[in-house]
Amino acid sequence: MKPVYYKLQSTDGKARLGELFTNHGSFPTPMFMPVGTAATVKSLAPEDLHAMGAKIILSNAYHLYMRPGHKLVEEMGGLHKFMNWDRAILTDSGGFQVMSLADLRKVTEEGVQFSSHLDGSKHFISPEISMEIQRSLGSDIVMCFDECLKHPATREEVQKSMELTSRWERRCRAVKLKEHQGLFGILQGGMYPELRAAHWEMIKDIDFEGWAIGGLSVGEPPAMMYEILDTAVPLLPQDKVRYLMGVGTPEDLVEGVARGVDIFDCVMPTRNARNGTLFTSFGKVHIKNAKFAKDPGPLDPECSCAACTNYSRSYLRHLYVSNEILGARLNTLHNLHFYINLMRQMREAIQEKRFDEFRQAFYKKRQENEETS
Amino acid sequence: MKPVYYKLQSTDGKARLGELFTNHGSFPTPMFMPVGTAATVKSLAPEDLHAMGAKIILSNAYHLYMRPGHKLVEEMGGLHKFMNWDRAILTDSGGFQVMSLADLRKVTEEGVQFSSHLDGSKHFISPEISMEIQRSLGSDIVMCFDECLKHPATREEVQKSMELTSRWERRCRAVKLKEHQGLFGILQGGMYPELRAAHWEMIKDIDFEGWAIGGLSVGEPPAMMYEILDTAVPLLPQDKVRYLMGVGTPEDLVEGVARGVDIFDCVMPTRNARNGTLFTSFGKVHIKNAKFAKDPGPLDPECSCAACTNYSRSYLRHLYVSNEILGARLNTLHNLHFYINLMRQMREAIQEKRFDEFRQAFYKKRQENEETS
Repeated sequence: MKPVYYKLQSTDGKARLGELFTNHGSFPTPMFMPVGTAATVKSLAPEDLHAMGAKIILSNAYHLYMRPGHKLVEEMGGLHKFMNWDRAILTDSGGFQVMSLADLRKVTEEGVQFSSHLDGSKHFISPEISMEIQRSLGSDIVMCFDECLKHPATREEVQKSMELTSRWERRCRAVKLKEHQGLFGILQGGMYPELRAAHWEMIKDIDFEGWAIGGLSVGEPPAMMYEILDTAVPLLPQDKVRYLMGVGTPEDLVEGVARGVDIFDCVMPTRNARNGTLFTSFGKVHIKNAKFAKDPGPLDPECSCAACTNYSRSYLRHLYVSNEILGARLNTLHNLHFYINLMRQMREAIQEKRFDEFRQAFYKKRQENEETS
Repeated sequence: MKPVYYKLQSTDGKARLGELFTNHGSFPTPMFMPVGTAATVKSLAPEDLHAMGAKIILSNAYHLYMRPGHKLVEEMGGLHKFMNWDRAILTDSGGFQVMSLADLRKVTEEGVQFSSHLDGSKHFISPEISMEIQRSLGSDIVMCFDECLKHPATREEVQKSMELTSRWERRCRAVKLKEHQGLFGILQGGMYPELRAAHWEMIKDIDFEGWAIGGLSVGEPPAMMYEILDTAVPLLPQDKVRYLMGVGTPEDLVEGVARGVDIFDCVMPTRNARNGTLFTSFGKVHIKNAKFAKDPGPLDPECSCAACTNYSRSYLRHLYVSNEILGARLNTLHNLHFYINLMRQMREAIQEKRFDEFRQAFYKKRQENEETS
């Protein structure tokens, strides 16, 4: 038996209902993974995540390599024990962070040289080093170290980059991980449908435990991302889980599931929460808005999270305006509850073969709110 | 029946065991009140406070008058409902904050003119206005509006100030509060034992529901505060609760209880938590210290709080160094748990007539740690 494996249960159009098994529990898909960059989902404790039904979180090889150090985490018993999280963890390889955070980046065949975003110190990460970092962390799902280009990139840049990524993915697969760890490959190819297909031909023979679609949500318009998904997702095998990296808005999740994606991660619900932007059943709410100052109602009357059950919009606005830590926590609880609940609703809709209906109702509700607000 | 009243249960030396009754529940004394300045105990939710056994919190008339405004809080159903806290609340009058935070302060017989610490806007608070603010907030215990001098102050300054405070306290008592609200008087007199006695003579005939000792913990050395308590506490009647305002360190709580004080409040456990200074059964811990980087043990092996039960010193240090919100929360949970547990231990010691023994053991343990660390 593979350490990480997927079982497809049913489909509704291209949307898939399944289950992903790991050494730290299994969970139904489609699923959203809260982001816990530095070994903590910002402002929340593990029991908060348990309460909202989160079954897997994402953490970052790059950040934990920088601070506190992957060897330290390993000495402390691994990432699960370190952060007191007993369910599944997926670690990002560092490829995206090296692109988006590091300075003085230099990519060679061997790997990437760069300066730390924290203190300017010089570092080098190769596919082998990324595997070593993730092995030390002990995550359940390890991501290949790839090159992630910014948008826009020329056809030539993408072609060259995805060839390099293909070689790096084979080097990642050649590294021995811990027994419980599964390794996911990443499909690149930028915003060029034919390069997505070409990259798939380069890597499809590698035996990964799951497949990710990378290089999206890097600045392109949503329609372009959906078009790439239309090409890319059908390339992937039915019997492996499909992970759309770094995506996205609630609309992106619905469109991703509609195209056959199984798992997602994004900082949006957590980061927006701290910035006072809240996702609700009727669209986005900016809690700072003065119209909420004396609003005694709940943030989202349809939501059953602790923030909506126990507090008013007036109080949430007060906490935000006063820069109170509890505001960050309640907003994060709400936004992640919204995302995780949205995935649950989609799973139910797929199970009951009414995903299209759900998708239409989802947009209709948002449109009505725009018209009336 | 008074809206707020105290029942003395037993004594051990000068230390008192009792119960304070309010419209939002009763609680045993000696008790520590966590500070919730802006209608939130920073980083915690009410359920966190419930879990650690907090039965009363302190909030601030000055801060809530400034933001979000006491009338807004009243419109939202009062402070208890606004912040979702169903147990007792004591509100400070604003006297201390006007002294410590406001700019361009001008004290007259009528009240205090000052500029806001938030935006420089001009404001005026009188005894009557402070009562109006606290009435709107709907706290269970309302504090008189007094003048709180900085240390050091001359005998003449203290004499003049306490005469003014005496007149203000009568004006506070003359204001009709909500039915469930009790009003506490404040004994001033600075660092002059004979002025403490003189001030008591000026105010002892006013029928307050409880008495506070103010004007301490304003920069004087601990020994001076204890000396003033030796004089001041015995002045107060046995049948009313005694509240030592803004105090203090764990040692101060032990010394206050030893001298007959019943309730305390201080920002120290919450503020220090956010600064990474943690109180333990063996003394203070600065969690930032590099020696904790790879320390897999709990912060305080004798503590049963969530931070000590679920996390290592290594992880707490990582959260602090990474400026993670969860660090502030776990540290605050721990420090308040320590304070509230210290009070519980003192109540048990008084009940069992072994308070002196407890006090000696408390110091011995700290001394041993200093010698070995």
